[in-house]
Order: sequence, then C-alpha cells, then structure tokens
Amino acid sequence: MYKLYDFLPSGNGYKVRLLLTQLQIPFELIKLNILAGETRTPEFLAKNSNGKIPLLEIDSNIFISESNAILYYLSQDTAYFAQDKYEQAQVMQWLFFEQYSHEPNIATPRFWITELKQADKYQKEIEQKRKLGYAALNVMEQHLKTHNFFVGEKYTIADIGLYAYTHVAEEGGFALTKFTAILDWLKRIKSQPKHILITDL
Amino acid sequence: MYKLYDFLPSGNGYKVRLLLTQLQIPFELIKLNILAGETRTPEFLAKNSNGKIPLLEIDSNIFISESNAILYYLSQDTAYFAQDKYEQAQVMQWLFFEQYSHEPNIATPRFWITELKQADKYQKEIEQKRKLGYAALNVMEQHLKTHNFFVGEKYTIADIGLYAYTHVAEEGGFALTKFTAILDWLKRIKSQPKHILITDL
Repeated sequence: MYKLYDFLPSGNGYKVRLLLTQLQIPFELIKLNILAGETRTPEFLAKNSNGKIPLLEIDSNIFISESNAILYYLSQDTAYFAQDKYEQAQVMQWLFFEQYSHEPNIATPRFWITELKQADKYQKEIEQKRKLGYAALNVMEQHLKTHNFFVGEKYTIADIGLYAYTHVAEEGGFALTKFTAILDWLKRIKSQPKHILITDL
Repeated sequence: MYKLYDFLPSGNGYKVRLLLTQLQIPFELIKLNILAGETRTPEFLAKNSNGKIPLLEIDSNIFISESNAILYYLSQDTAYFAQDKYEQAQVMQWLFFEQYSHEPNIATPRFWITELKQADKYQKEIEQKRKLGYAALNVMEQHLKTHNFFVGEKYTIADIGLYAYTHVAEEGGFALTKFTAILDWLKRIKSQPKHILITDL
C-alpha cells in the first residue's frame, strides 16, 4: 500500500490526498509536523533530501516528491490526465504556473498567517507577495472566463493543482469576491465525484 | 515552423533552444527584451497572459508556455524523456524541484546582478536567496555523488532543466568549487552531442 508522508494543513499535500481519494487508491497516511522539524530529521532526509512533504512511497524505499510530480504519476492512464499530446503539455504548463507564479505568492502568506501566526513579522513580505498573488489570480480568472476547466474542458490534475491553494487563498488575506469566474470554478471543482475537503483527513 | 519567443540571456529560454537544437528541430527565434517591457505589451499578453518567455508557438496561435512544460512537450517519444512510468515521474520531480527550489533562488540573483546591474539595491534579497540556493545545490550534489545523470543514468530533460541555471550560477554569486559532483556533471552535460552554449544564438 502507498504511504503518504504529509502535513495536513498543506495544500500541496491536499492535492495528493484528493487525487488518491478520487482514484479510490487506499494509502497509509503518515502525519509529520513541519513546524516541529519532522521533515528535517536524518531519517526523513534519507527519504527526501529536499526535506519536504508531500512524499509518496510507492514501494519500499521508492519515493516520489514534489506534489505536482506525484499528481502526474498517479494520473497516468486515468481520466484525470489529458490524452492528447498538446493537452498533456497544457496540463503541465498550468502545474508549472502553479508552482512558480501561484503557490509561492498565495500559499506562503497563508502559512505565515495561519500556521506560524506571525502576520506582523512578515508584513512586508506579505505585501510583496500580495501583488504577485493577485497577478496569478488574474491569469486564472482570464482563462476561466472562457473555460470551465483549465485543460480540455474536463476536470484534470491541472484543476486539482490550482484548486489546492486557491480555495483557501482568503486564509492568506486574498479577497476572491471580484474573481467571479474563479468562484464559479471553485464550486465546479468542489462538486466533482468523491471530492474531499482539505480538513477531511 | 515553430516560433520561439525568447530573451536570450534567460536560462529558461536556453533550455528550450538547447533541446530544439539537440532534436534538430528548426525554429524561428523571436527575440524580446524583457527589460524593455516587450513581454508586457497587449500583443504579447494575448499570446501568454502570464507575460513570460519562453513561449513556443507550435502552430498559428497555438502556444505552450512554462519552460519545463515546453521541454516535456518536445521530448515526448524521444530519447530525452524517460520510458518507464516511475522514471518519467522522476523527471517531472526534478523539473518541479528546479522551478520551485532552484530557479527562484539561483536565477534571480543572476538576473539582479547581470541584467538589472543592481546588486547593491538587492543585497538583502540576494543574501536571503543565497542560503536557499546553496540548499538546492546541496540536494543536487548529494544526488550526483552516486548518479551520472538525474534520472535513469541517461541524459534527459531533467538534466537540461537543471543545467540551464546551474552552469551560470557563478554569475549570480554562487561558488561551485566545493560541488565536485555538480562540476563533473556540468562537464558531462556540456559534452552531449549537439550541445550549444547559452551565448550561441
């Protein structure tokens, strides 16, 4: 059985929990507390030298790290990836957009505010990231004004990847009220079969 | 013929130029100056709403953005991707590592120093990124101590992705002398058939 090393408030971890659940793949959840340094122990660094969750152990001592690479692995030959070569590249494009332009600016303020509870200490950094985070949300909004999903007009791992931190962006101080296409898309994702909440496990 | 919208000093652009050359795929190079706002014009934003190069136009008005998604697209069904499902996921894992843990910390100081020529202005940010950049180099070094390439003991787009900004890391103030496994790997990549330099086009 797969083992998922995870920190439950993480949107990156939630992506993997959501897809595993929708694929009906059973997994053992190994909860680590990143705030207590549990991903920086010699034992964990031997599994993932980058010291990050989520980490999926697909067989004894066979690991995949990086949330979006795990989504890629799990979705191969399923309806959650795309079939056409160009659409497959579009899925990857949106997942790289998520990790480069979206997550560092939208997830990080949420982490500082809700996990570290140090909004004051990080006020300047939060302001810098606010502008870039809204820019990423604008890119999503523009696309979703004319599309129901990110790729191929169907639910794929591109949607899962972008849903994870968008649906909790308000916890990081982002106001989504003006992003009406994003708000409609969030409802669409939440209504997919076998959806689970980030707080469900 | 493919059109590549690019800014020549960009390592992200170089990744694509290198793979296109190694695959012997002819392409039209459209040079844009990001310092002059040429990726922020209405005309370019209509092609890529995220306003970034590299951007590959594979057919009239059919675009792929995100350098590593372009590598993924171009390498499908070639020797530059992996064949086995697990190794394919490893390639993606290293490419996501590159965009999240490596590029933002190693490429950005180089950009501030060599393109903006504002090392003094960004001194504090450069120091913050220095620590994270060395952490990423340490992850690479550890892997390369026991591997000739990143995945499957052969040259893939994972190597191309990580080579782009590692081989010019010293331009961003990183000292590579202690990273002997990385230095050996850089030589190995540079000796691949049809290799081109970042300054070659």
